[in-house]
Amino acid sequence: MTLDLVIKGGTVATASDVFAADVGVKDGRIVAMGESLEAPDVVDASGKLVLPGGIEAHCHIAQESAAGIMTADDYYTGSVSAAFGGNSSFVPFAAQHRGMGVTQTLDLYDGRAAPNSVIDYGYHLIVADPTETVLKDELPAAFARGVTSFKVFITYPLMKIEDRQFLDILAVAKAHGAVTMVHAENNGMIEWMGEQLMNAGHTAPRYHAPSHPALAEEEAIHRAICLAKLVDAPLVIVHVSTPEGAEIVRRARADGAKVWAETCPQYLFLDKSDLDRPGMEGAKFMCSPPVRDARTREALWKHLQTGTFTLWSSDHAPYRFDETGKLSNGPDAPFKKIANGMPGIALRLPLLFSEGVNAGRITLQDFVALSATNAARLYGMHPKKGTICIGADADIAIWDPKLTRTVTAADQHDAMDYTPFEGMSLTGWPVTVLSRGRRIVDGGELKAERGSGAFISRGLPEIAGRPGYKAPELDPAHNFGAEIAP
Amino acid sequence: MTLDLVIKGGTVATASDVFAADVGVKDGRIVAMGESLEAPDVVDASGKLVLPGGIEAHCHIAQESAAGIMTADDYYTGSVSAAFGGNSSFVPFAAQHRGMGVTQTLDLYDGRAAPNSVIDYGYHLIVADPTETVLKDELPAAFARGVTSFKVFITYPLMKIEDRQFLDILAVAKAHGAVTMVHAENNGMIEWMGEQLMNAGHTAPRYHAPSHPALAEEEAIHRAICLAKLVDAPLVIVHVSTPEGAEIVRRARADGAKVWAETCPQYLFLDKSDLDRPGMEGAKFMCSPPVRDARTREALWKHLQTGTFTLWSSDHAPYRFDETGKLSNGPDAPFKKIANGMPGIALRLPLLFSEGVNAGRITLQDFVALSATNAARLYGMHPKKGTICIGADADIAIWDPKLTRTVTAADQHDAMDYTPFEGMSLTGWPVTVLSRGRRIVDGGELKAERGSGAFISRGLPEIAGRPGYKAPELDPAHNFGAEIAP
Amino acid sequence: MTLDLVIKGGTVATASDVFAADVGVKDGRIVAMGESLEAPDVVDASGKLVLPGGIEAHCHIAQESAAGIMTADDYYTGSVSAAFGGNSSFVPFAAQHRGMGVTQTLDLYDGRAAPNSVIDYGYHLIVADPTETVLKDELPAAFARGVTSFKVFITYPLMKIEDRQFLDILAVAKAHGAVTMVHAENNGMIEWMGEQLMNAGHTAPRYHAPSHPALAEEEAIHRAICLAKLVDAPLVIVHVSTPEGAEIVRRARADGAKVWAETCPQYLFLDKSDLDRPGMEGAKFMCSPPVRDARTREALWKHLQTGTFTLWSSDHAPYRFDETGKLSNGPDAPFKKIANGMPGIALRLPLLFSEGVNAGRITLQDFVALSATNAARLYGMHPKKGTICIGADADIAIWDPKLTRTVTAADQHDAMDYTPFEGMSLTGWPVTVLSRGRRIVDGGELKAERGSGAFISRGLPEIAGRPGYKAPELDPAHNFGAEIAP
Amino acid sequence: MTLDLVIKGGTVATASDVFAADVGVKDGRIVAMGESLEAPDVVDASGKLVLPGGIEAHCHIAQESAAGIMTADDYYTGSVSAAFGGNSSFVPFAAQHRGMGVTQTLDLYDGRAAPNSVIDYGYHLIVADPTETVLKDELPAAFARGVTSFKVFITYPLMKIEDRQFLDILAVAKAHGAVTMVHAENNGMIEWMGEQLMNAGHTAPRYHAPSHPALAEEEAIHRAICLAKLVDAPLVIVHVSTPEGAEIVRRARADGAKVWAETCPQYLFLDKSDLDRPGMEGAKFMCSPPVRDARTREALWKHLQTGTFTLWSSDHAPYRFDETGKLSNGPDAPFKKIANGMPGIALRLPLLFSEGVNAGRITLQDFVALSATNAARLYGMHPKKGTICIGADADIAIWDPKLTRTVTAADQHDAMDYTPFEGMSLTGWPVTVLSRGRRIVDGGELKAERGSGAFISRGLPEIAGRPGYKAPELDPAHNFGAEIAP
Repeated sequence: MTLDLVIKGGTVATASDVFAADVGVKDGRIVAMGESLEAPDVVDASGKLVLPGGIEAHCHIAQESAAGIMTADDYYTGSVSAAFGGNSSFVPFAAQHRGMGVTQTLDLYDGRAAPNSVIDYGYHLIVADPTETVLKDELPAAFARGVTSFKVFITYPLMKIEDRQFLDILAVAKAHGAVTMVHAENNGMIEWMGEQLMNAGHTAPRYHAPSHPALAEEEAIHRAICLAKLVDAPLVIVHVSTPEGAEIVRRARADGAKVWAETCPQYLFLDKSDLDRPGMEGAKFMCSPPVRDARTREALWKHLQTGTFTLWSSDHAPYRFDETGKLSNGPDAPFKKIANGMPGIALRLPLLFSEGVNAGRITLQDFVALSATNAARLYGMHPKKGTICIGADADIAIWDPKLTRTVTAADQHDAMDYTPFEGMSLTGWPVTVLSRGRRIVDGGELKAERGSGAFISRGLPEIAGRPGYKAPELDPAHNFGAEIAP
Repeated sequence: MTLDLVIKGGTVATASDVFAADVGVKDGRIVAMGESLEAPDVVDASGKLVLPGGIEAHCHIAQESAAGIMTADDYYTGSVSAAFGGNSSFVPFAAQHRGMGVTQTLDLYDGRAAPNSVIDYGYHLIVADPTETVLKDELPAAFARGVTSFKVFITYPLMKIEDRQFLDILAVAKAHGAVTMVHAENNGMIEWMGEQLMNAGHTAPRYHAPSHPALAEEEAIHRAICLAKLVDAPLVIVHVSTPEGAEIVRRARADGAKVWAETCPQYLFLDKSDLDRPGMEGAKFMCSPPVRDARTREALWKHLQTGTFTLWSSDHAPYRFDETGKLSNGPDAPFKKIANGMPGIALRLPLLFSEGVNAGRITLQDFVALSATNAARLYGMHPKKGTICIGADADIAIWDPKLTRTVTAADQHDAMDYTPFEGMSLTGWPVTVLSRGRRIVDGGELKAERGSGAFISRGLPEIAGRPGYKAPELDPAHNFGAEIAP
Repeated sequence: MTLDLVIKGGTVATASDVFAADVGVKDGRIVAMGESLEAPDVVDASGKLVLPGGIEAHCHIAQESAAGIMTADDYYTGSVSAAFGGNSSFVPFAAQHRGMGVTQTLDLYDGRAAPNSVIDYGYHLIVADPTETVLKDELPAAFARGVTSFKVFITYPLMKIEDRQFLDILAVAKAHGAVTMVHAENNGMIEWMGEQLMNAGHTAPRYHAPSHPALAEEEAIHRAICLAKLVDAPLVIVHVSTPEGAEIVRRARADGAKVWAETCPQYLFLDKSDLDRPGMEGAKFMCSPPVRDARTREALWKHLQTGTFTLWSSDHAPYRFDETGKLSNGPDAPFKKIANGMPGIALRLPLLFSEGVNAGRITLQDFVALSATNAARLYGMHPKKGTICIGADADIAIWDPKLTRTVTAADQHDAMDYTPFEGMSLTGWPVTVLSRGRRIVDGGELKAERGSGAFISRGLPEIAGRPGYKAPELDPAHNFGAEIAP
Repeated sequence: MTLDLVIKGGTVATASDVFAADVGVKDGRIVAMGESLEAPDVVDASGKLVLPGGIEAHCHIAQESAAGIMTADDYYTGSVSAAFGGNSSFVPFAAQHRGMGVTQTLDLYDGRAAPNSVIDYGYHLIVADPTETVLKDELPAAFARGVTSFKVFITYPLMKIEDRQFLDILAVAKAHGAVTMVHAENNGMIEWMGEQLMNAGHTAPRYHAPSHPALAEEEAIHRAICLAKLVDAPLVIVHVSTPEGAEIVRRARADGAKVWAETCPQYLFLDKSDLDRPGMEGAKFMCSPPVRDARTREALWKHLQTGTFTLWSSDHAPYRFDETGKLSNGPDAPFKKIANGMPGIALRLPLLFSEGVNAGRITLQDFVALSATNAARLYGMHPKKGTICIGADADIAIWDPKLTRTVTAADQHDAMDYTPFEGMSLTGWPVTVLSRGRRIVDGGELKAERGSGAFISRGLPEIAGRPGYKAPELDPAHNFGAEIAP
């Protein structure tokens, strides 16, 4: 068999193994691995690491907030920035707003993504309006269309669903084998604290943090897990920002619950000393849940090292520091009127490589798992995506583990005017990125054409104990079942 | 000083000590204790225990449910039954329903209690409609009137408050030094499960249990504690029915939270084998939260022994097994249409004495603490009520620790037509009960006159570390405060 | 009845209640409490607190260390200092050394105590040589003699017993109803660390702390509890100095184990900044386990507030800062050659009152429990000792809760030349102390005669669930039993 | 490149991925993977799984017990049985007995293994006599020789080391990067319980279980972890048999300790109902720690599923049920005189495949990790052994996932006369096993020559956070260090 391309001389890593091998590509897939492969086209990976292309599983691209503010990045700039950051796939959100249908929502996002993305993409479907039609017809239709993960909010007035609706969605997700994700913060606490602070005249960006207290996350994570346990449905807690929340997840997992957790670079690399910067500068560091303190950073690193977190995502939510984004309500807007979120899609992996792998906190295999494999397995893309093996898409990131660069906003290749990680010196960067065998980033330049990314039709999660996870019936033996049985 | 009455020859117990002493009474108060007191009137307590009269801190008397069903017991029958069960005080609920004012509510209950009660009484105020007037004016007025504990529901559509309202109430309670009590079950889970069961045709009483899953209690207890921690307000979790819930309380208390928990006899003495009785018979055992299983009973006993529970209450909620109560929606009503609750005000103490003290599970001091002292301390009546000491009201129950009797409905002296504890053989019963020095029960007969009970104007709780607990300001150093400070 | 003495106008506190009462004494016992008692002899307690006299349950008096160094305090100076500190009883150790018999040991200590003590006393018997005779005959004889608590060491080469011997002692203790106490530190860790430090030339007093690492305590506490659980015998962990150790106790107690823990003022009031003082000065702060750090102090306060600790003792181990004590191996002795221990018998209660009660961390009832009642109940002296009730010995300490004094060595009334608490300003001091109705300290002066203290013949512990704790047989249903049954 | 051999048409699994691929072998190594490889020699793996050959990391082969009884299996029968069970490597123990040198021990075992083994092998070195020479010279020499894991006993009179010696060994292991393994049971408890039982005439095999109580394991695991934490050295707890022990490991790992745990099939598949079989039959099921009960089995399965256990080993300790083994002290020997251990080297993997993978409890990737990869990584053989990747030894087991067979002793191919798993029906068996590209088992027949196995010179462990784990100095910043610093 004649190969199209070979990646020669590198050190390949999977979530399990690290070994020297050439990787051979044909028709966009990995079809050969061996000791001395040949092909007309060669990528020299000597002295480099050959890793699965990253999968960014939590980012906001071409998405309007409930308040109507559009992210700065569309599917072109967002995917380009992701690619420069070592990613070959991403799964942004398709957000149903109230009054919209689910199919309508997915069609809308297809129109935004397909003509623009330079990397492969899927969507997590945000469900904000679980009408009977949505539950009975549209969620199953979304699942059939390859959108096999749903996300809900239990905070934010315009997005939040009630506990009972949450159970409805979890039950539908379970019936089809979909995974449900949740933004877990207690809405009542946030509103109450916000009111106290605003009434007291505490309107600067820094007051965003106390308005989203750690207790609000701890509470909501516990509640969401209880709800998921009631129907025995798989659940992902996104962007965990507190040790208290992480501890609840850890305990539930040890107890056998089908729960997974995600954290993000901002919670391990930033803290409220950033948010506390003078004037509106702090607004650049506003995200929800908010960055916390030094103790939290340290505790979350430990949770990352000891396996509490399955997912490592950017939660890229790009709002420029100008009147189109953060300052859309004016240069002195109170924190309640400032868009939440920060960019980071290009830095998720370099940050983890530098401070994780190079600093000796995690193994290279852990890095691969966190950057790609775990998301692929949990979100139904594996092994087509997320690893380096025969038959997989040739989605590969070649890393120079010793290259040191300083972070600048200009290098992000996104539509943003700042990066919260400005000035950090990181060692270990992706130098070439391939998507289905095509170089999309190489030599510091974009090589991909707009719209060359393809939709990823996703399947069932690979959940522990269920490689071919078959959606169980609402279990009659569980919780209420045993008692119901006549 | 000439005494009015002396209780001679008994063994006195407090929450701390057990010792032989005569107890001398004058003008309704304990004014002397000693080795050989004399008075014109003598109660012979030889071979008996002289204990503080019980304080029943959780019972529903002359109270309409939100659905409009009135309890079978009014303040006369309720207080008589309580007295026969060794109690000299009780604190039923005064229930604000939506649209009612708080002062109006308290006036209403004064009209029900004052002319009828044979034992002293106070009210916990149920707050179901926390309007601005209620928060700003009426709760402080209730506090000033000696009603220093508020109760909220976070389940039941007609009673439940939202998390944000809960925070408002907690903040007011904290500002005045009141204690807040919560019925903690997740409303969404209960409604969702109920719907699933009803849709499946599972309407018999036994399905009440799965409709209130253990997870609903676990969730709500955790949430309520998080809310209380946010404002650093004291909180009582009433009628804890699951080890999962008890464990959350235990952990919070170990972590220093101002949280206390109550459990009730039904959760340690009954289980779903009772609720599962054929036909409508199970309806007699319906209460919320529901009775659970054998493992739960055992685990809750252990929690009682190891100090998780501060309060032991009956949750007496008397609905007759006829068309005025349980069967008010017909003899085949689905479980969702059957009034929740069971009687037990006369058995709370004999059950605990027999299976607790006599079975060697708890000490006599523990019994005194659980029967009276802890409630007196937590609900602001101590040491006037709840103990035997100089200056206290002469509220005394004289127990025969070796007397064995079998429980029958007829012996309850309430307005009910059944007892869920029918047929149990218990050892250790109160034989004489005094209220402010007056015999109210003696020789198996009622000696008190209707309306002889007095209102107890309660004060601040004696909370650990704060004997003269002074209501703190909303603490600026707590949680958000440190971050707010400029 | 004519009283000998009345304490008038004070506020009495027990572990349960706080109330105004006069206390009447006759023949050394409390025989009356009331509102206006009269007697020929009156102690004016207006504005004062009338508390049970303290019971010091962990102190070393007239005791040789295994290395042969005698404590500075004998039963006269030790009891005098204790009395000035608000104590009316104490229970020092009678230490069996290897080769000595138990009866011989007790006789020896009787000779030291009886002619000298000004307060009532008992002994905890240290068992260092559990020969067959000791186990079969002498421990039962000690128990019959009223010595109902045994102590073992699992560290210190000359005192330590092996795990198997520990089980032997626990089994004998259980069979008779005695309580076993343990000094829990891992001997291997201490020896190994000591050797590393000495080999590295780290000989200054400050290196005592790392030579007794926190892990050594954590390990040994866990081990001791496992051993006690194996035979279901009650166990007291003395002088807990780490949150890790306290947490293990807390968890075991929550799990129902018959385990109690003690801590001491040094662990909550001192830390290694004291031990780190220059030169040999640090030797004054050397005790075992060692004082730790600020985080530990805070964590132990929290454990004290949340009920982990049942006992609060001084571990008074007085070695003068001269050639008779700390410096007996010369002014430059390496830390391994310096006697461990510090004085504190006169300050145990004032420290707790000032920083516990007056600072609002614990209630007055908690103070009474920690100062006297708990020790009385656990060590078999209750209610004769440890509380204020009819029939109890008139052992009473009258406290001025508002008196502020600064600690000086000179005010300790012991045989020591320093106090580690020098210079602290404390509010709340005992002003009059009575033992069996006799003033022993009053107006700042000693009123008792040498040798007026009496031996306390102790009985069974009042253990939760077993007021008349009956020594069970080695339980055939426990652990191995169920499996043994044919 | 011309391949020697290709495994065609199978489904390959690693600890991370499952995918279809041909695997090409040359000179004993995997040099190619691809979609349609060709070679002169072909193994048809259609419909089969192509897995890394198992690594048995805990077995006793040609080893005398301290009491002098030799295992039934030598390196020939032991390795043959292992190979039939899907293993291509194993790491038995080389046991130093007291008085022997380490080099002498390793030479002795080389003489036993090299001429006989049909699979590759290494040794864990049991250290029973840590003299100064052993610590200073011989352990480093063993490490240099490729024996990079040490095992200690803290029970068994003839093997046990003291805590202080344990610290010495841990410190040496840490200095060189070796891993220390521990058999963790409390010796004192075992001796004491054994004595109680023997004295009571309880001598039947079934009394072996109560003589090794669960508390003995719980205690020793906690102690061993504390010791390892003191010097920050990596530690493996072998054959964990209790949920209490597993829980301690889980907690320590969550807290960041460098601790790993192993469990064995007997603890998940057998229980005391087996040990309780009449007469001496129970002796077949005697091992240490002993099999427990049904609750334990279930709890350990859950720990296996939730990641507590890194290793799954047989603890194959083959003593025949005759006068050479179990009955060497006669047909009525008391349990204390019966050799402990049971065979299982051929069933470790089929048991896990059938009840783990096929029953849906774990994923296929989990199976690979537990069967081979984790041991390879932890014991310094990865990626040469333990996975399928380019460059690795062609150690491969081809499994038929649907083949069902019933376990018989005759099929074990070992030197034993029984199997404790007799009669179990299992689905999923290895059908062909390759070692370095050579078929060693195929078509139900042994294909390997005696002595064809090679010694595996092992390196450093791949410990979380340290792919190239560099042995740290005894960390001066850890525990005592910070306090030592001047």
